[in-house]
Amino acid sequence: VSANVTASEAALWLAARDNFLIISHRRPDGDTLGSAAALAQGLREAGKTAFVLCNPEATPRYAPYVEDYWAPDDYEPASIIAVDTASVDLFTDNAGAYTGAVSLCIDHHASNSFYGGVNCIDAARATCGEIVFDILTALSGSVSSVTAERLYIALSTDTGCFSFGNTTAETLFAAARLIEYGAPNRVLNKKLFRTKTRGRIKIEGMLASGMEFHFDGIVAIAAITREMMETAGACEDDMDDIAVIAATVEGVGIGITIREMSSANDCKVSVRTMLPYDAHAICLRFDGGGHKMAAGCTLDKPIDEVKTELLEVVADYLKSNF
Amino acid sequence: VSANVTASEAALWLAARDNFLIISHRRPDGDTLGSAAALAQGLREAGKTAFVLCNPEATPRYAPYVEDYWAPDDYEPASIIAVDTASVDLFTDNAGAYTGAVSLCIDHHASNSFYGGVNCIDAARATCGEIVFDILTALSGSVSSVTAERLYIALSTDTGCFSFGNTTAETLFAAARLIEYGAPNRVLNKKLFRTKTRGRIKIEGMLASGMEFHFDGIVAIAAITREMMETAGACEDDMDDIAVIAATVEGVGIGITIREMSSANDCKVSVRTMLPYDAHAICLRFDGGGHKMAAGCTLDKPIDEVKTELLEVVADYLKSNF
Repeated sequence: VSANVTASEAALWLAARDNFLIISHRRPDGDTLGSAAALAQGLREAGKTAFVLCNPEATPRYAPYVEDYWAPDDYEPASIIAVDTASVDLFTDNAGAYTGAVSLCIDHHASNSFYGGVNCIDAARATCGEIVFDILTALSGSVSSVTAERLYIALSTDTGCFSFGNTTAETLFAAARLIEYGAPNRVLNKKLFRTKTRGRIKIEGMLASGMEFHFDGIVAIAAITREMMETAGACEDDMDDIAVIAATVEGVGIGITIREMSSANDCKVSVRTMLPYDAHAICLRFDGGGHKMAAGCTLDKPIDEVKTELLEVVADYLKSNF
Repeated sequence: VSANVTASEAALWLAARDNFLIISHRRPDGDTLGSAAALAQGLREAGKTAFVLCNPEATPRYAPYVEDYWAPDDYEPASIIAVDTASVDLFTDNAGAYTGAVSLCIDHHASNSFYGGVNCIDAARATCGEIVFDILTALSGSVSSVTAERLYIALSTDTGCFSFGNTTAETLFAAARLIEYGAPNRVLNKKLFRTKTRGRIKIEGMLASGMEFHFDGIVAIAAITREMMETAGACEDDMDDIAVIAATVEGVGIGITIREMSSANDCKVSVRTMLPYDAHAICLRFDGGGHKMAAGCTLDKPIDEVKTELLEVVADYLKSNF
């Protein structure tokens, strides 16, 4: 395991090198894509050559901010950087050649496996974007409005526009400075947090209408079938963070969302909890896992069976622990 | 019209006086009640006597943070302070005796009529809470966690947890400092922004599921019947701001929400628009009105007829204006 470096040390490391390729994680969110695009942009502004490895799973929500940095097929990088990616298992398939070759790993996940030659990990930060911001200001003294926009996307999306429990004073200080650097927070907030697609509003409506409450309202459970998505006209991009809804209901401590994925026997379960309930402990029973307040698992069974099994496991979990 | 003073000057003014009564505005929101409670608390920490005039319209959402500061009936104030209140017309009925007696007016509304003996108005600030924060730090050098909590309520609720277009870098800097002073942002965000009652989530779900789109998706129309509310288990408290939902859909310029009220022939219509569409112009055709982006009207007809008539009027409005 390689030692950790500070943002300033990471900046010195970057200053001494060139020809970077930046890798983002599978099922990419705003933090990994915003961090990757901002780092590429900031490195270019520092006179470097930098590209982001095309993430084939980038959705229309974030692609416009990062696709201009996709590396050409014949690009020959000298240094590989991974952002917001806790482990090489989270690399996209086209990043397979780089799993043993990461020169610098920048991340905020406590579970990071320190797989880089150099690692700049700070698990106290709410977002990876904050660490990239620190590195770029250490490198160049400031960031451009283009970089600030991408960093604002990273910070705001990973904190639910600063409303999630991970948001710290540091996050808000950084966001304030990004606005001063020209991040268009009004436009971005309207687009990212105050606009829903027609598919999203319909699928949210169906999810909420069908939500069931169990165990004196401590458990909310919602199912989303492929048929519901078709009726709603919802696509994968519309499903971002849909699992949080069940856990936002007053009194609910365990919010469970089951999604039918590629087939009727392929269900993805997302569990969101409020303390003292432990999402990870529940998902472990199905060989899944995650964090205490957000975890997941997959079951190769029809959605109705998944629901029944989950409620049985939750009943047992509640009985054993409370 | 009295001249404007800075936050530092307002602090000096406060330091030289005592026995304050703080007034909040009619239909009170988190900014006016949070600012009032924070100012009372901060003045007390500076060794002063300070109370908030009871606001009889304070809702359960904010009352817990301010009711401990309500002035006793026999309180005899020496200096009257109004917060977040653009004009004495917005005073609650029990503040009638003070309309001509405001010593210090603290506000962020551009429309403020400078009705105080001294006025500390800054229309560039997103929230009144930020100005109160500046005044209290000028007065005492810092704020306590109790004061910070109330100021955080003011800042976060008036900016939709920092997502509205009014949010500035200053707002986020101030919020970050409040967290450093001990404002429990996690608890407050969860309570204020990430919790919905079961009735609310169900009625939102039904509203979204039944939402229709017309005129190439420019118009979204949603109906809420009394039967739907009964099925959802939703009460009037659950209906706060429900009309904004139709206007948050991508591409929608005119969001219409129709509610069946006391009887099947008593419908309340709320229209929310994005520029250039004019909610007021549409509601005027039914003898209603309001602002350009938010207006309403009532029709004494069954909900289906109301919907048909509205769509006819909107068709005519669109044809005449665009």
